[in-house]
Amino acid sequence: YPGTYGAPPPAANDPMWSYFTAIAGQDGEVDAEELQRCLTQSGFTGSYTPFSMDTCRIMIAMLDRDSTGKMGFNEFKELFTALSGWKQNFMMFDQDRSGTIEPHEMNQAVNAMGYRVSPQVLNVIIKRYNKGGRIFFDDYVACCVKLRALTDTFRRRDTMQQGSVNFQYDEFMLCTMAI
Amino acid sequence: YPGTYGAPPPAANDPMWSYFTAIAGQDGEVDAEELQRCLTQSGFTGSYTPFSMDTCRIMIAMLDRDSTGKMGFNEFKELFTALSGWKQNFMMFDQDRSGTIEPHEMNQAVNAMGYRVSPQVLNVIIKRYNKGGRIFFDDYVACCVKLRALTDTFRRRDTMQQGSVNFQYDEFMLCTMAI
Ligand SMILES: [Ca+2]
Ligand SMILES: [Ca+2]
Ligand SMILES: [Ca+2]
Repeated sequence: YPGTYGAPPPAANDPMWSYFTAIAGQDGEVDAEELQRCLTQSGFTGSYTPFSMDTCRIMIAMLDRDSTGKMGFNEFKELFTALSGWKQNFMMFDQDRSGTIEPHEMNQAVNAMGYRVSPQVLNVIIKRYNKGGRIFFDDYVACCVKLRALTDTFRRRDTMQQGSVNFQYDEFMLCTMAI
Repeated sequence: YPGTYGAPPPAANDPMWSYFTAIAGQDGEVDAEELQRCLTQSGFTGSYTPFSMDTCRIMIAMLDRDSTGKMGFNEFKELFTALSGWKQNFMMFDQDRSGTIEPHEMNQAVNAMGYRVSPQVLNVIIKRYNKGGRIFFDDYVACCVKLRALTDTFRRRDTMQQGSVNFQYDEFMLCTMAI
């Protein structure tokens, strides 16, 4: 896992470092409660509904390779980069500024993120994440987290790049129960 | 999928049939909103917090093999059987009647349901579903739904019963994005 383990302590002059330490508190890591508070108070969700605890949990799980349920500084920055991209993406496809993405626009959004999935998978995604036929920002991000985490898992295992992977039962559950 | 497709219409003298038709409404199938209302109004969740929409969605996805996002009569009955089992299980392991299961009891609960998972998977489950160190009924059921759906998926693909399965990328996403 490049750049995550064994990395030197972050330079104290990184502009995000003092922000991170304030959020992380005594244990020096950010858990789901701290993340939810930070994303709400920082105004990141703006006029959208604040992220649910479930979404915050899977955000952390996406990056939490040692399964502590917390994020260090590098993961925290990595998450903010991902979140900024998803927010831009969401705003771009919410063309009528309704604050939601409609199912027929979800196809474009998923493609724009670089995922190549079949119409069946897209149908499953829309069924899972729409509320009353609309996809809200919180659910959109939950969807993005899962798309990214599952695709990363798949790629990491598909070492020969054959487009196919093998799982033992316990490995399968380990990769899929967390998110 | 035995007993689901091509089954004859359920006998009108099944005691649950009129209950089902009242909940299903005009389209004759139960969607996530209808399921949430029904589980809340029937008193199924009792003194526990009503099921979230997300939990209702994955309950349906667990049984929804044609990905319509709705349940027919047979699936509806199948879900109630599963829910009754999970509720009994939850109450049995909530020995101090706190209304929650504590992480250390989750091991027994998962074993009692017949799943054999490693300590790592159990750790991931607890990290994912606890709130402030406790597992509430709604999250417990969400966890049970995922355990069952993912294990069913695995078993269905593991036709030779070798304890290992193979996925193409799109198959993998189809099985995991829905729940
Ligand atoms: Ca902390
Ligand atoms: Ca819109
Ligand atoms: Ca209906």
